[in-house]
Amino acid sequence: MGKEIPSRQEDYSLWYNELVKKADLAEHSDVRGCMVIKPYGYSIWEKMKQALDKMFKDTGHVNAYFPLFVPKSMFEAEEQNAEGFAKECAIVTHYRLKNDPEKKGKLIVDPAAKLEEELVVRPTSEAIIWSTYKKWIQSYRDLPLLINQWANVVRWEMRTRLFLRTAEFLWQEGHTAHTTAAEAIAETKQMLDVYAAFAEQYMAVPVIKGKKSEGEKFPGAIDTYCIEGMMQDGKALQAGTSHFLGQNFAKAFDVQYAGKDGKLEYVWGTSWGVSTRLMGALIMAHSDDDGLILPPKLAPIHVVIVPIFRNDDELTKITEKINPVIEALRQQGLSVKFDSRDTHKPGFKFAEWELKGVPVRLAIGPRDLENGTIEVARRDTREKQVMNLDQVSHQIPALLNTIQENIYNRALSFRDNMITRVDTFDEFKKVLDEKGGFVLAHWDGTSETEGQIKEQTKATIRCIPLDASEENGSCIYSGKPSAKRVLFARAY
Amino acid sequence: MGKEIPSRQEDYSLWYNELVKKADLAEHSDVRGCMVIKPYGYSIWEKMKQALDKMFKDTGHVNAYFPLFVPKSMFEAEEQNAEGFAKECAIVTHYRLKNDPEKKGKLIVDPAAKLEEELVVRPTSEAIIWSTYKKWIQSYRDLPLLINQWANVVRWEMRTRLFLRTAEFLWQEGHTAHTTAAEAIAETKQMLDVYAAFAEQYMAVPVIKGKKSEGEKFPGAIDTYCIEGMMQDGKALQAGTSHFLGQNFAKAFDVQYAGKDGKLEYVWGTSWGVSTRLMGALIMAHSDDDGLILPPKLAPIHVVIVPIFRNDDELTKITEKINPVIEALRQQGLSVKFDSRDTHKPGFKFAEWELKGVPVRLAIGPRDLENGTIEVARRDTREKQVMNLDQVSHQIPALLNTIQENIYNRALSFRDNMITRVDTFDEFKKVLDEKGGFVLAHWDGTSETEGQIKEQTKATIRCIPLDASEENGSCIYSGKPSAKRVLFARAY
Repeated sequence: MGKEIPSRQEDYSLWYNELVKKADLAEHSDVRGCMVIKPYGYSIWEKMKQALDKMFKDTGHVNAYFPLFVPKSMFEAEEQNAEGFAKECAIVTHYRLKNDPEKKGKLIVDPAAKLEEELVVRPTSEAIIWSTYKKWIQSYRDLPLLINQWANVVRWEMRTRLFLRTAEFLWQEGHTAHTTAAEAIAETKQMLDVYAAFAEQYMAVPVIKGKKSEGEKFPGAIDTYCIEGMMQDGKALQAGTSHFLGQNFAKAFDVQYAGKDGKLEYVWGTSWGVSTRLMGALIMAHSDDDGLILPPKLAPIHVVIVPIFRNDDELTKITEKINPVIEALRQQGLSVKFDSRDTHKPGFKFAEWELKGVPVRLAIGPRDLENGTIEVARRDTREKQVMNLDQVSHQIPALLNTIQENIYNRALSFRDNMITRVDTFDEFKKVLDEKGGFVLAHWDGTSETEGQIKEQTKATIRCIPLDASEENGSCIYSGKPSAKRVLFARAY
Repeated sequence: MGKEIPSRQEDYSLWYNELVKKADLAEHSDVRGCMVIKPYGYSIWEKMKQALDKMFKDTGHVNAYFPLFVPKSMFEAEEQNAEGFAKECAIVTHYRLKNDPEKKGKLIVDPAAKLEEELVVRPTSEAIIWSTYKKWIQSYRDLPLLINQWANVVRWEMRTRLFLRTAEFLWQEGHTAHTTAAEAIAETKQMLDVYAAFAEQYMAVPVIKGKKSEGEKFPGAIDTYCIEGMMQDGKALQAGTSHFLGQNFAKAFDVQYAGKDGKLEYVWGTSWGVSTRLMGALIMAHSDDDGLILPPKLAPIHVVIVPIFRNDDELTKITEKINPVIEALRQQGLSVKFDSRDTHKPGFKFAEWELKGVPVRLAIGPRDLENGTIEVARRDTREKQVMNLDQVSHQIPALLNTIQENIYNRALSFRDNMITRVDTFDEFKKVLDEKGGFVLAHWDGTSETEGQIKEQTKATIRCIPLDASEENGSCIYSGKPSAKRVLFARAY
């Protein structure tokens, strides 16, 4: 079928790229660093959006939309944030093209249409949003302000990979404003919990919640919290971040509120985001050498039905028999595809739907019709069973739940197995090179040590886990005292 | 309450601007020509999106996402399209900022990070999409390709108005590819019908379907179809367009398919879009001097309940009584707001929810508790009635349907009344100046006459109505023969 992908063992990176393309999830565009999200990939992203959006609304947030462009002077107002993103910004400098006087039919930038002030294509929206919040917030009665935005952002990355790192990507960014630090911190943590719940319950990807080190935090934040997942090649992937911004943006944009006592105070802020990068995590956490394995909660198609027939007459009989089953499954909210194409053989279809990660495949032929049975195949375990046709519509929903759980549990035991505690730097390097995964080790808390370790091993501190227990030890690198272990890994 | 808006009579344009701002729909941002869509406004847009998205999917379309940026050489490939948008394009020329050596904490564009080829921020996506379709389409089996995209686009407008004309706006753009002209034309018309059904059934805005004249069609299209609505000030508003692109983009991007006979043919295309401009149409078609009037199908809040109380005890009693009613309404899928704030008086609340266009307001006080009644007020007619409390949850859904219909019928009779047939140019000018609205008149079919009429009267040909009957007449301007009347109006 020309859809074979290399095995993970052979070349994990190539396996990923080919899988993304062959399963019709995304492809590189002719625009440097930008991807095209294809319909099948986009339908998974739509399911993610829908579930996340509901979780945001259930926690009191509303959606809004702020401009794509940020004037340079506004962008630079919060200096740390500006410095953090300045090196990867797309800049609009002109607002018109004109005919090229030297080449008919060609256009050139019109030098007369140069902007007085350049516009930055948003790499993140704190600046534009806080400059707006200044107008919206006067008193404590205007707070908390709990707003989310679904948008595209641009970060000019030099090395790009589909979904994982692209110049333009889709995301949501929450931006909230509060009267107290405590309330803002509680919001930051609440949204981290929302992300973790989404990753685990929908994506079936277990994650570790933690706080970033100073060196890895968001530019302009006081604290950055994150969720970290483990991919099958032993590399970590940051799947979402939630930032406590303190009063940094409120001060940069002069956003103050009058308290009950009339006193003016700067507002406390948070921001939090997940992006189409989640697609990369979803793909790499579960899939195998035959293609995608999708958790049912995010699968665009839950059940594919492949009829086995030699002629139109057989297809007609199968169709008559299967239609009520399809109807009964759809009634239960399931998405069902009946693949009755006569241009492809069943084997081809099986491979195609395996590649696309459809959780359950049903196959039914003339013999089944006689017996009143159907073959049920699970994508996650590849187990097959013969089921009575009249039980299908009752049993499939439960099977889908089982698959969702199984995918999660499999990823969980893999991840747990990929957490190694080490106490020396030699051991640390050995684990990274031979096994990979997360390494729990003591660290002296300095950026210097963090930098040295990163330089020598390419491993970074993924996070200081929120559930890390106090434990006296000494830094694997400097030998200095440490009070808890932090989580290292090589990462995407 | 400081929320008064000027009357429509006084200053229609100011009424609109103030209404958009005071009802918390949108506001101007500090970025030239770009708006901020505020949460209340965005929630109406979300409802529009949801309904449209379902209609697109029900007609076989899928969503995808294509890059924001279009390289200049790709942009200019379809010459008419490029020429049509060249004068209003935001252009990215650089990909990095750096510290200003002369001003600490300030940034400047890094001249070393100049792009080899400039990028156009998409004003519309035909170019980027057709350059992608070239890779996706080889054979007739790959067709039709029925794809939609929800995205932001940028057109550098010099004079902007909230929702109606902004530099950046949100929209959807469908881009389809077909084997035959007939199929593409059928798709173009189908989507026009979808837009008309959405405008009429959801927005309660009656529209006239028609074809644009040569002078008004989309750059790069063979034919542009549109729906035209009538606003309360007698100006027309184009609410959606659907384009038959012929083989123009297929030829520009060399998109050919092999037919069943193996022969290569250029693909036939369509594109169609509606944008946040629909918000402007929705607001201007129905609202009055006290604020928005929203059709229930797009109202973020269907029912607001205002308790009338003097003390906590009364509020408690009302709350106990009303909670089951709220629950029963929500069970039926309605969005209900119980406005129990003790910081504002009922009169203030009434005015606020009228401003925001909530279709039904319930008010309940101590006397009602005794009588087992509640006051029901309609936003559209301002009629009030007293209803038995135990009937509310049964009657409100029907009342909302009645309101939806009434708003549509009112707009329809207004619109019908605003269509005038004229046979002379004097009459034409008189109607435009004294009455406004649509004018049905004979036109000789030439761009020259169209241009003259526009120059002298500011009226444009909105469309050649699809249902226009054959009728011999003579052009109101040139006196030349004409076979049917076309629809003129001054327009947004």
